[in-house]
Amino acid sequence: MDDRELVADALAGQRRALARLLTLVEDGSEERLREVVRRLHPHAGGAQLVGVTGPPGVGKSTLTNAMVARWRGRSRRVAVLAVDPSSPFSGGALLGDRVRMQDHALDDGVFVRSMASRGQLGGLSWAAPQALLVLDAAGFDVVVLETVGVGQAEVEIASVADTTVVTLAPGMGDSVQAAKAGILEVADVFCVNKADRGGAERTIRELREMQRLGHGEWLAPIRRTVASTGEGVAELVDAVDGHHRWLSGDGRLVRRRADRARLQLRELALGAVRGRLMGVDGGGLFDDLATRVAEGELDPYTAADRLVARL
Amino acid sequence: MDDRELVADALAGQRRALARLLTLVEDGSEERLREVVRRLHPHAGGAQLVGVTGPPGVGKSTLTNAMVARWRGRSRRVAVLAVDPSSPFSGGALLGDRVRMQDHALDDGVFVRSMASRGQLGGLSWAAPQALLVLDAAGFDVVVLETVGVGQAEVEIASVADTTVVTLAPGMGDSVQAAKAGILEVADVFCVNKADRGGAERTIRELREMQRLGHGEWLAPIRRTVASTGEGVAELVDAVDGHHRWLSGDGRLVRRRADRARLQLRELALGAVRGRLMGVDGGGLFDDLATRVAEGELDPYTAADRLVARL
Repeated sequence: MDDRELVADALAGQRRALARLLTLVEDGSEERLREVVRRLHPHAGGAQLVGVTGPPGVGKSTLTNAMVARWRGRSRRVAVLAVDPSSPFSGGALLGDRVRMQDHALDDGVFVRSMASRGQLGGLSWAAPQALLVLDAAGFDVVVLETVGVGQAEVEIASVADTTVVTLAPGMGDSVQAAKAGILEVADVFCVNKADRGGAERTIRELREMQRLGHGEWLAPIRRTVASTGEGVAELVDAVDGHHRWLSGDGRLVRRRADRARLQLRELALGAVRGRLMGVDGGGLFDDLATRVAEGELDPYTAADRLVARL
Repeated sequence: MDDRELVADALAGQRRALARLLTLVEDGSEERLREVVRRLHPHAGGAQLVGVTGPPGVGKSTLTNAMVARWRGRSRRVAVLAVDPSSPFSGGALLGDRVRMQDHALDDGVFVRSMASRGQLGGLSWAAPQALLVLDAAGFDVVVLETVGVGQAEVEIASVADTTVVTLAPGMGDSVQAAKAGILEVADVFCVNKADRGGAERTIRELREMQRLGHGEWLAPIRRTVASTGEGVAELVDAVDGHHRWLSGDGRLVRRRADRARLQLRELALGAVRGRLMGVDGGGLFDDLATRVAEGELDPYTAADRLVARL
């Protein structure tokens, strides 16, 4: 099957074609990918893009699963992209797609895919936009991007999603504390999951106190859930959809998507330049300069200047 | 004080000068930084660079503190750079330097600095090499780079350190599981901290089993510590120093440092190109292309090609 057919099948929502295109994104076979992206791009833009992030152990997979069920109850078709940034080398995601989301295995309106983000290729900020594009163009109403949110990943998710759900759990001590600094600025909706555990009130109170210190024009609502029983998940989905309605007003969604396009453009351009930098003189100049830096003969800035000058 | 004096003072080990240079790295004022790096670079290369990483909550700060005490007992001067990648927006690190490492507050042979890694500037892989260069050139025998190790950060630490210590704790369930996939390949030494807790044996056993599936020419030793009491820390420091001795043989350290120089060269060159890409036509071309991508008129790869063509 050639890529033209593959794209046509993906646009028609064929799951096998979707899976093959996502493998293309994951493998980063750029030559084929650029042709595929070129064909898919005009069909994208209709999906509601939702990021779900939070530290390890807060129950993000179970929560995503429960949210998918709610959206399905509202007749919306949902795709889930679970990105595992902790696995840069393995080339395969930790939790197989078969293990995840078993509740929806027979539902044609749900598509689930796990991906490893590859450090070499610029990671999440490189792969996620292309993967979302595939699922968006394929006509899903909601596309969920789920990832462990520690460090850079949070910021990157927020930059590709329309709505970012930051998930916490009570009593996680240090890790929640550590996570908080960055998350306040990326969260559109907060979810305190495992809310039947002790400490949920305290976590909510701490979030409210942080929000009192300052927020933008949108005050992120805080929802409490017990994803394993479904408690509070309908209210969480309401909050997510509510944020999307708010975004749609006053040109906010258009601006957010323009920011996303800027990010994607920058990453793709840098990716192209990276290849050219390493390839000057068949890689000889790069190696030579690096060796001279390592030996203390040349400082790294001067070396970088010489390399860039030869582009 | 001009930068020439600042560099001279830093080379003489003056703490105030070191602090000011690290602020320069953190703020990313590139013009001044490149001059400073150019002056410092010939003086660097003498320090043993140790990365300490692991998931949140395993006690990395306490462990680093305890290791510093051991190195001081061996008359080695130690600098600690604690990078907090979870705080990309704040511009300030979570734990103030005064709170950290109080045991060493009056010891002139110890220097501690917390830094936030800034998402905008390429994060850890951009800032860490310059910060390490400052501390290395200032004549510290050991420079420790401590950071939360989830996702990309682990790989980046491993790429700048001579020896990477991956720290785990018993009974962390999911988060250790999640961390394991990537860490096996970056760890030169494993530390199971909080080893007085139940489950330490199991964590060690699981690590051994993973190692049995394959490792490179170096088999990472596994050490157990209780950092809060100092138990096992001398043995951990022995393992770290042992790895450094092994590296020093057979040209391995030279090769590792050449790899580091390649990374630094690439990041600096890409940083320079990034500025130029966004600045074509005073930023007009970048904005125009991004808008056309957002509106579905132009696909992102074609847009990136047009941008790169104008470099």
